[in-house]
Amino acid sequence: MTSPLLSGLATEIIIPVCAVIGIVFSLLQWKLVSRVKVTADANGPPSNKNKNGYDDYLIEEEEGMNEHDVVVKCAEIQNAISEGATSFLFTEYQYVGVFMVVFAILIFLFLGSVEGFSTKSQRCTYDGARMCKPALATAGFSTIAFLLGAITSIVSGFLGMKIATYANARTTLEARKGVGKAFITAFRSGAVMGFLLAANGLLVLYIAINLFKVYYGDDWEGLFEAITGYGLGGSSMALFGRVGGGIYTKAADVGADLVGKVERNIPEDDPRNPAVIADNVGDNVGDIAGMGSDLFGSYAESSCAALVVASISSFGIDHDFTAMCYPLLVSSMGILVCLITTLFATDFFEIKAVDEIQSVLKKQLIISTFLMTIGIAIVSWLGLPTSFTIFNFGTQKVVHNWQLFLCVCVGLWAGLIIGFVTEYYTSNAYSPVQDVADSCRTGAATNVIFGLALGYKSVIIPVFAIAISIYVSFRFAAMYGIAVAALGMLSTIATGLAIDAYGPISDNAGGIAEMAGMSHRIRERTDALDAAGNTTAAIGKGFAIGSAALVSLALFGAFVSRAGIQTVDVLTPKVFIGLIVGAMLPYWFSAMTMKSVGSAALKMVEEVRRQFNTIPGLMEGLVKPDYTTCVKISTDASIKEMIPPGALVMLTPLIVGILFGVETLSGVLAGSLVSGVQVAISASNTGGAWDNAKKYIEAGASEHARTLGPKGSEPHRAAVIGDTIGDPLKDTSGPSLNILIKLMAVESLVFAPFFAAHGGLLFRL
Amino acid sequence: MTSPLLSGLATEIIIPVCAVIGIVFSLLQWKLVSRVKVTADANGPPSNKNKNGYDDYLIEEEEGMNEHDVVVKCAEIQNAISEGATSFLFTEYQYVGVFMVVFAILIFLFLGSVEGFSTKSQRCTYDGARMCKPALATAGFSTIAFLLGAITSIVSGFLGMKIATYANARTTLEARKGVGKAFITAFRSGAVMGFLLAANGLLVLYIAINLFKVYYGDDWEGLFEAITGYGLGGSSMALFGRVGGGIYTKAADVGADLVGKVERNIPEDDPRNPAVIADNVGDNVGDIAGMGSDLFGSYAESSCAALVVASISSFGIDHDFTAMCYPLLVSSMGILVCLITTLFATDFFEIKAVDEIQSVLKKQLIISTFLMTIGIAIVSWLGLPTSFTIFNFGTQKVVHNWQLFLCVCVGLWAGLIIGFVTEYYTSNAYSPVQDVADSCRTGAATNVIFGLALGYKSVIIPVFAIAISIYVSFRFAAMYGIAVAALGMLSTIATGLAIDAYGPISDNAGGIAEMAGMSHRIRERTDALDAAGNTTAAIGKGFAIGSAALVSLALFGAFVSRAGIQTVDVLTPKVFIGLIVGAMLPYWFSAMTMKSVGSAALKMVEEVRRQFNTIPGLMEGLVKPDYTTCVKISTDASIKEMIPPGALVMLTPLIVGILFGVETLSGVLAGSLVSGVQVAISASNTGGAWDNAKKYIEAGASEHARTLGPKGSEPHRAAVIGDTIGDPLKDTSGPSLNILIKLMAVESLVFAPFFAAHGGLLFRL
Repeated sequence: MTSPLLSGLATEIIIPVCAVIGIVFSLLQWKLVSRVKVTADANGPPSNKNKNGYDDYLIEEEEGMNEHDVVVKCAEIQNAISEGATSFLFTEYQYVGVFMVVFAILIFLFLGSVEGFSTKSQRCTYDGARMCKPALATAGFSTIAFLLGAITSIVSGFLGMKIATYANARTTLEARKGVGKAFITAFRSGAVMGFLLAANGLLVLYIAINLFKVYYGDDWEGLFEAITGYGLGGSSMALFGRVGGGIYTKAADVGADLVGKVERNIPEDDPRNPAVIADNVGDNVGDIAGMGSDLFGSYAESSCAALVVASISSFGIDHDFTAMCYPLLVSSMGILVCLITTLFATDFFEIKAVDEIQSVLKKQLIISTFLMTIGIAIVSWLGLPTSFTIFNFGTQKVVHNWQLFLCVCVGLWAGLIIGFVTEYYTSNAYSPVQDVADSCRTGAATNVIFGLALGYKSVIIPVFAIAISIYVSFRFAAMYGIAVAALGMLSTIATGLAIDAYGPISDNAGGIAEMAGMSHRIRERTDALDAAGNTTAAIGKGFAIGSAALVSLALFGAFVSRAGIQTVDVLTPKVFIGLIVGAMLPYWFSAMTMKSVGSAALKMVEEVRRQFNTIPGLMEGLVKPDYTTCVKISTDASIKEMIPPGALVMLTPLIVGILFGVETLSGVLAGSLVSGVQVAISASNTGGAWDNAKKYIEAGASEHARTLGPKGSEPHRAAVIGDTIGDPLKDTSGPSLNILIKLMAVESLVFAPFFAAHGGLLFRL
Repeated sequence: MTSPLLSGLATEIIIPVCAVIGIVFSLLQWKLVSRVKVTADANGPPSNKNKNGYDDYLIEEEEGMNEHDVVVKCAEIQNAISEGATSFLFTEYQYVGVFMVVFAILIFLFLGSVEGFSTKSQRCTYDGARMCKPALATAGFSTIAFLLGAITSIVSGFLGMKIATYANARTTLEARKGVGKAFITAFRSGAVMGFLLAANGLLVLYIAINLFKVYYGDDWEGLFEAITGYGLGGSSMALFGRVGGGIYTKAADVGADLVGKVERNIPEDDPRNPAVIADNVGDNVGDIAGMGSDLFGSYAESSCAALVVASISSFGIDHDFTAMCYPLLVSSMGILVCLITTLFATDFFEIKAVDEIQSVLKKQLIISTFLMTIGIAIVSWLGLPTSFTIFNFGTQKVVHNWQLFLCVCVGLWAGLIIGFVTEYYTSNAYSPVQDVADSCRTGAATNVIFGLALGYKSVIIPVFAIAISIYVSFRFAAMYGIAVAALGMLSTIATGLAIDAYGPISDNAGGIAEMAGMSHRIRERTDALDAAGNTTAAIGKGFAIGSAALVSLALFGAFVSRAGIQTVDVLTPKVFIGLIVGAMLPYWFSAMTMKSVGSAALKMVEEVRRQFNTIPGLMEGLVKPDYTTCVKISTDASIKEMIPPGALVMLTPLIVGILFGVETLSGVLAGSLVSGVQVAISASNTGGAWDNAKKYIEAGASEHARTLGPKGSEPHRAAVIGDTIGDPLKDTSGPSLNILIKLMAVESLVFAPFFAAHGGLLFRL
C-alpha cells in the first residue's frame, strides 16, 4: 500500500479553501441579486434613467402603471411573506430546540451507559492491541457533534429561507425587463442557498474533525464514531423541517385552492384570498427551508457513513489523513465543479425565450455530472493510495483507487438517470403527463386512477438504477463503496439545490406579481419560470430519495458493523418481523402526515369561507382579507401535527433496539428502506404529474391541450382536483419519507453500542 | 417419539369422508336454493296458493304488479348475466389453457434438465444413505400436479360463478318475502361455493397424494416435492382469474358509473345503462370466480408448503402418514366446523330486520374461530405424536404437539383480528369511514386524501398481527409452523368464502331488482344485504392478504430449503438488490392493472356515451340499449390486459432465478412479500372505505349523514368520485397482489432445483 499523491498538509489546506471559495461565491451571487432594488425611491423620485439600477424599458411604463406604487406594493408583500416565514421558523425552532436538548441528553446518557460511565480508556473494538478513548468521551463528543449538526441544519434552512424571501420580489421586478433577467435573479438566489449550504456543511464538518482530533489523537475509530452524531443532528432537524414545513405549506395551499379556485373561481395567488400569504410563506418554509435541511442531512450522513467505515479500514488504521478525508475532498471538488456549472446558466448564456428555461436547467444537471466525473477522477487519483483495504463485516477487502472512482461515478450517474426519469414522468412535454391530462376528459376519478398508476410506474427505472449502483459499489468496496456512491450522487448538491430552490422562488415571484396587481404579461413570464420549477422540484426530490436510499444503506452497514452483527438473515424470525414491520412504517408515517394536511386544510377552508362570507366587499377587492388568521392556522397546525410523525421516526429505533435488539432493528431498517423508497418516489411523481397535467391544460400550448381546456372547463376542474390531492403527496408525505429512512438508520448507528450492550430486553426475558 | 393416536388407516378414511361430507352439504344447500323457482309458470298459471313453492305474501301483489311478468323478467336478466359470465370465462380459459400447456412443458423441461433427464435413481438430498426417485420423475409428477391444481382452480371458480348466477335472481325473488328469506338464499348459495371449493381442494389433493404414492413408495421427499406443483397450478390460474376478472368487473363498473351516475344522473343498475349487464357479469367473474380461485390457491399452497417441509422432517423420514397428513386433517376438521357454523346463519336463527345482517355475518367469523380452536386442539391431540422434529434450514428442531396447536391457532386468531380491523376501517358504522364521508364536505380532493390516509393507517394492526403470528409460529416450529399458521387462517375457508360470495350475489340481486323494475322496497332490502356484503368483501380480502403473507413466507422457507441456501443475508449485495427490486414489483404490477382498468373504463365510457347520444328513446326507457357491445369491450380489454401483469409475475422468478440465481431470488421474494402486503391491504381498505362512505351518505341513517346528503348533493358527488377511484384499487390491484406474492414464491419453490443447478448465469460470467 502506497501513500496518496496529495500530502496530509495539502488536504488540510485544500478542504477549507474550497469551502471558503463556495461561501465567497455564494456571497457574490447574493451581491448580484441585491443590486435589484425593491425600495422604489432610494434614489429619489423614479426616473427613466436609473430605475432599479438599470436603464431597461419596463412593461409597466408601457401600460401606464405607476412604477412607484408597484414597487412599494411588492416590497410590502415581500415583507409580509418574509415576516411570516421568519416567525414560523422561530416558533418551529423553539419546539425543535426543546427536542434537541432532550435528545442530546438522551444521547449522552445512553452512550455513556455503555461502559457504565467509566472514564478509563478501553481496548479498541477492531484492534485489541491498542487503547481507545472511553465510551463516555464518545458519548460527550457524539452529543457535541449532534448539536453541531442540528445547528448547521437549522442555519442552512434559515439562510435559505432568508435569501428566498429576499429574492422573490426582486424576481418579480426583474420579470418586467424580460424572462431572462428574472430567471437569472431567481437562479442566482437559488445558487446562494446551494453554495452556502454545501460549503457550510463541509466547513463545519472539517472543523469538527480537526477539533475532535485534538482530544482523540490516534484513536480515529472513536473520533469518527463520535462524528456520526453530526449526521444525526442534521437529519433530525431536517425531519421537523420537512414535516412541519410540509404540513404548513400544503395546509395553506390546499385550503387556498379549495375555496379560491374551486368554489370562488378566482385565480391562484389572488390577493382577495385570505390564505394567499400563508400559501406563499409555505413555499419558503416547506420547499426551501425544509428541503435545504433535508439535503444537508443527506450530505452530512453520507459523509459520516463513509468516514466511520473508513476509520476501521486501512485509512484509519494507518492514519492516512488524505485518504481518510476522501469523502470531504469529493465534496470540495463538487463545490468547484458546481461553481463552473452555475456560470453556464448565469453568465455564459442568456435566456431569451420562455421555452429555453427547461433546457437550461436540464443542461445544468448534465454539465455538472460530466465535469464532476472528471473531478472525481482527479480526486481519486490524487487523494487515494493505488490500493487499500476496506472493512467488510469482519473482513478486510482490497480495493483499488479506480474501483472507488467507479463507485462514486455510479452514484453520480444514477442520480442523473433518476433525474431524467423523473423529468419524463412529471414534465408535461412527454406522453405520461399528457395521458393523465387526457384522462381528465372523463372526470376526476380517471385522473386520479391514471395519476396513481403513473406514480407507481415511475419507480421502476429509479429502483433499478439504485439497485445497480448498490451492486456495483458494494462489489467494489463493500459498504464504503455505497457511502461514496451516495456522496457521488450528492457531490453536485450546490447545483441541485440551486435548481431546486429556484422553483419556489419563481412560484413566490408569480404570487407577488398577482398580488401587486401587475400586468398579465408579467404573470405569464413568472408562470413559465414556475412550470419549469415544478419539474425541477420533482427532479430534486428524485435525487433526495435516491441519495437517501444509498445513504441509509451505507448507514445501515455502518450500524451493523458497529453493533457487531455478522449477518442479517431474513430467515430468522427476529429479522423477518422487523422487515415486515419496517416496510409498514412508511405507510403509518404517510397516514399521519396526509391526515394532518387534510385536517389542517379543512380548518383553513372553513376560515377562508368564513372570511368570504362575513367580510363585506372582500370578493369585490374593496377590503383586505385577514391574512394573519390563516398564517396562524397553518403555523399552529404544523407545529402540533409534526410531533406524532416525528415521534414515530425518532422513537422506533429506540424502542425496537431496546426491546427487540439489534437483529430486529436491522430488519426494521432494511424493511423501511426498501418500502419507503417506493412510496416516496411514487408519491412525489404522482403529485408532480398531476400538478403539471393541470398546468398543461391551463397553458393550452398544443392542439390536444386546447381540447381539454380552457380554465374552468370540466376537464380542468378534474385536473385541479388531482393537483390538490397531489399536494400533500408530493410536498409532505413523499419527501419526508427520505428522512424517515435516513434518520432511523443514522439514529441506530449512533445508538448501536448502547443497543448492543443493553438492547433486546423482550427477547432476553 | 411416539406415534399419533390416530392410525394411518383411520386418517386414510377420515380425510375423504370429511371431504365428501362437505360436498354433500354443499349439494344440499344447492337443493334448498333451487326450491326457489324462477320459472313463473312451471306449475301452471300463478296461483296464490302455491307460488314459488311458498305461500308467503308477496310485496308485488300488494302493489298490484304482475307476478308473472316480474319472474319472467328476472329469469331473462339472470340468463343474460349467466351467459355473459359463462362466455367470458370460456374465452378466458382458452387463453389460460394455452398458457397452462406452455407452462406445463416448461416445468417438465426445466425440472427434467436438473439431472440431465437421467432416469436413474439418485441419492436423496436430505439423507445420503437412501435412494430417491430421479429428477425426471419429479419433473413429470410436478407437471401432473400442476395441471391438477390448475384444473381444480378453474373448476372451483367456474362452479362458484354458476351457483352465483343461479342464486342472484332467486335472492331477488325471495326479497319480496322479506329480508330474512333473501339473506338465507344468498348465504346458502355462498355456502355452496365455499364448501364445494374447500372439499374439492382437499379431495383432489388427497387423491393426488395417494396416487403419486403408488409410484414414489418410500420416497416421500420426492412425492411431496412433486405435489408442490398443485399449489403452483392453483395459483397461476388464480392470477389470471383475479386480474382478468378484476379488470372486467371494474372496467364495466367504472364505465357504467361515470356516465350513468355522474353524467346522466340515473340510478345504479338502471336498465337504461348499456354497461349494466357487463357490470353484473363482472361481479360474478371477478368477485366470485376470481376470488374463489385465489383462496383455493392459498389453500393449496399452504398445504403444499406444510407438506414439503414435513416430508424432510421426522414425519417424512419416519413415514408417519397420520402426522404427515396433519395439514389435511386440519382442513378436514375445518369443513366440519364450518358446517356447524353455517347452520347458525341459516337454521338456528332467523334474520328479521335489516340491521341484523351485519351482526349475523360477524358472528359467523367469531363462531367458526371459536369452534375451530377446539377442532384444532382435537386434531393436534389425535393426529400428532407428542413430540417430533421439524426441518429448520439444515438442522432439526424438536416440537411438541401443543406447540403446533398454538401455531395453527395463532394463524386462526390473527385472521380474526385482521377481519375485525378491516371491518373497523371499512364499515360505515365506525368513525374512520364517517371521517372520510365528512371530508366530502370540502370536495373530492379531501375525500381522496382522507381515504388514502385511512388505507395507509389500516395496515398497522394487520401487519403487527402477521408479524406476531410469524414470530410465534416460527419460534415453535420454524417454517412448518408458519405453513400451519397459514392453514389455520384458511381452515375456516368454507365459511369465509360463503360470507365473501354472499356479497356479489346480493349485489347482483339488487341489480336484477332494479332492472326488472321491481318495487323500491325490494331494492331497499337488497341494498341492505349489499352494504353488509361490502364490508364482508373487505374482510375477505383482509383474510386473503393475511393468509397470502403467511403462505408466501412458508413457501419462501421451503424454497430456501430446497434450493440449498443456508442464510439469506441482507448485507450481501446479491440479496439486497433483490430485496429492493422485489419491493418495487407490487408497484409495477399495480401500475399495470390500474392503467388497464382506467383505459378499459375510458373505452366503456365512450361506448355508453355513444349509445345514450345516438340511440333515440334510450334515456326515456323506450328502447333497450345494446348490452352486448359493452360486454364485448370488457371481455376484450380484460383478456388483452391480463397478459402483461400475468407475464410480469410469472416471468420474474424465472428471469431472476436463471440470470441472478437463488440468493437474488430470495431477496426478490422477501421484498415483494413485505412490500406487497402493505400495498394490498391499504388498496383494499381504501377502496372499501370510499365505497361505504358513499353508501353512508346515500343511506342517510344518522343526523351527520343527512347533513352530507342527499344523493346528488355536492358531498355525495365527491363521494362517488372516491368510490370510483377505489374500484380498481379494491377489486383489481389490491387483491391481485396476494397472488403476486404467493405465486412468485410457489413458482420459485417448484423451480428451485433447476435454479440451484443452472441459475445465476449473469454472476457466473
